Amino acid sequence: MSLVVQKYGGTSVGDTDRIKRVANRIKMYYDQGHDLVIVVSAMGHTTDQLVDMAAALNPNPKPREMDVLLSTGEQVSIALLAMALDHIGVPAISFTGGQVRILTDKKHSKARIQDIDTTRLKQSLGERKVCIVAGFQGVDEDENITTLGRGGSDLSAVALAAALEAKECEIYTDVDGVYTTDPNKVPSAKKIEHICYEEMLELARLGAGVLHSRSVEVASKYGVVIHVRSSFNNVEGTLVVPEDSIMEKVAVRGVTLKSDDARISVLDIPDRPGLAADLFNRLARADINVDMIVQSTGKDGRNTISFTVPATSVGVTREVSDSFLKEMGGGTIDVQENIATLSAVGIGMKSHSGVAGAMFEALAKNNINIEMISTSEIKITVVINKEDGRKALEAVHEAFELGK
Amino acid sequence: MSLVVQKYGGTSVGDTDRIKRVANRIKMYYDQGHDLVIVVSAMGHTTDQLVDMAAALNPNPKPREMDVLLSTGEQVSIALLAMALDHIGVPAISFTGGQVRILTDKKHSKARIQDIDTTRLKQSLGERKVCIVAGFQGVDEDENITTLGRGGSDLSAVALAAALEAKECEIYTDVDGVYTTDPNKVPSAKKIEHICYEEMLELARLGAGVLHSRSVEVASKYGVVIHVRSSFNNVEGTLVVPEDSIMEKVAVRGVTLKSDDARISVLDIPDRPGLAADLFNRLARADINVDMIVQSTGKDGRNTISFTVPATSVGVTREVSDSFLKEMGGGTIDVQENIATLSAVGIGMKSHSGVAGAMFEALAKNNINIEMISTSEIKITVVINKEDGRKALEAVHEAFELGK
Repeated sequence: MSLVVQKYGGTSVGDTDRIKRVANRIKMYYDQGHDLVIVVSAMGHTTDQLVDMAAALNPNPKPREMDVLLSTGEQVSIALLAMALDHIGVPAISFTGGQVRILTDKKHSKARIQDIDTTRLKQSLGERKVCIVAGFQGVDEDENITTLGRGGSDLSAVALAAALEAKECEIYTDVDGVYTTDPNKVPSAKKIEHICYEEMLELARLGAGVLHSRSVEVASKYGVVIHVRSSFNNVEGTLVVPEDSIMEKVAVRGVTLKSDDARISVLDIPDRPGLAADLFNRLARADINVDMIVQSTGKDGRNTISFTVPATSVGVTREVSDSFLKEMGGGTIDVQENIATLSAVGIGMKSHSGVAGAMFEALAKNNINIEMISTSEIKITVVINKEDGRKALEAVHEAFELGK
Repeated sequence: MSLVVQKYGGTSVGDTDRIKRVANRIKMYYDQGHDLVIVVSAMGHTTDQLVDMAAALNPNPKPREMDVLLSTGEQVSIALLAMALDHIGVPAISFTGGQVRILTDKKHSKARIQDIDTTRLKQSLGERKVCIVAGFQGVDEDENITTLGRGGSDLSAVALAAALEAKECEIYTDVDGVYTTDPNKVPSAKKIEHICYEEMLELARLGAGVLHSRSVEVASKYGVVIHVRSSFNNVEGTLVVPEDSIMEKVAVRGVTLKSDDARISVLDIPDRPGLAADLFNRLARADINVDMIVQSTGKDGRNTISFTVPATSVGVTREVSDSFLKEMGGGTIDVQENIATLSAVGIGMKSHSGVAGAMFEALAKNNINIEMISTSEIKITVVINKEDGRKALEAVHEAFELGK
């Protein structure tokens, strides 16, 4: 039997009854003879409660102390799950991030894993114990507790799977898997059976919430197969796999819609080298997260640069752009907040031609106007009016027959 | 300015407002130029909540996992207190038991401290940071988290004070100090200003709740002065000091009353060497906590052995004693559950004569019958009827003028 790494999120271990259910699922695997490393998150709303207490004491707590505080959430979960397993006859042992030496850099609250020492895990696995590891946390070289930031527990699980050379890393969550699009928006959305790392990365970056892009990156780097599935049933979920193990390379694997961006256009600027670099360096220094960038040349050798930023950054972006134009001497700014960005992602775009055309056609048929277009090797993104968002999503989802 | 170790119990850090109050007290000391090491317990009822969750999953959880679970309580406290200090301009850094290497043996839930590495604390103190250390917890040589059992946070504080050669260890609690007797039972009870280790040890063993005997033992061994005081006011509390630094060695320092014991008498047994050893070995093997033991020789060379045990152990004690008598061939058992044990403790007994006489006289004057007597160098204990307990306590407290 093989080694399986499983990760259970906060909802799956939300209370003692759910912890019992998770223990029973683990027992099933254990009884089949598998070696098991289990990664758990903090129980349900524990983290929120800890954050509230911290906020009552210090509006701006030091990240180091925040990490000491938050890491207790996962520590509670590992101990309780080990007890629950022990009670149903499954030998188990818990480990904090520090105890299995998930060594990270010193960037508190968003640390990066540098190394994992698997000695102790392998020893416990050799004694046929289920190893329960606290997700989301590690230690730096000076034994300070660090946390890994958003999606941290997934990352812990994938990194452990890589370090232990596990064939598969099961990520248990409260949905059945990764869908062709958000089922709450498009009822015909279908669960994806296989998706490759590149596709999943694009979808994750576009905010398809199930997996965080960092864990997909690590999985891709070490060839760990991720199985995203629900802890509330036994249905097979979505397998995230290397590109070459996918038989059917469809043109479009999934479609996403984001409605929280704004479009900024800086119009009528001279076509001089270095101007774009200057603008985006200023925006970066102001900590503005620029997403799409499109530049087009207008008449008289004057340029237009359009880009999207989070709607919450519009004010600062306008200030930075204004001062940029003032120093440049000229140009105007146009801001459109009422936009949505629609993306189609698929590894098959590399070889299939006509994907962009088919997408634009589907939108045109529905009288949806395209404001911006940006394409990458496996992604096509368009900016449209926000009110057209839902309709456009449905149209593109149907055009590529994703609901079938 | 000197190094001060302070320990704040669970009530003192019971909620975020109380944590703020503790932070302000620490700031006062910090601003005076003191170096500070602060030991904190888990917030108020945190431990109970964790124990309840564990109980819902496993009626008999492994002590190792219980320690992983419970140690999170103190970890939450240290982070929050560090944040609260930081917010009022006091640089602070938190440490778990493991991070300052409070090295213990492997006896989970009742571990003993073996060593403390003060390197990291000294370094942080050198940077003028307040060091906040999680009480009650340590690690064994394999990085497993251990806890120190009852009174564990006091023990952490005293051990840290010893390791750092601090002059004083302040134990903040919800009472003003150590009293001549329980003020809830005797309103004229007075706070003791100075008490020596030996006296405090006897009082602690007799259940005078403020300090646990283990921390007094360590303080005594390393000459650490303990200052027991309230975190809710600025009143001086009780100083626990070496015998030779106490000027006034009173005959009786304090009086205690326990009402949860039972007296067992094994009557009419032969006066043969080894019989008592046999009986008490059997009781020890049955895990019965025997307190007082009195043996007297009766007529015809037959003996009576009387002893006290916790009232909850009466059933088992009777069984063990019965089988002892059966094998011996003879003797009877008498059980009296309705008893109280009254003790007077004072280092002055070593030199003052007549203390026992004065005590018995006070009881006789109040028509209180004495059932058993046991004396040590600095303690006299009598067993009386439970219903006489309160009256006897008052009488003895008054006889030695402790309320003055």
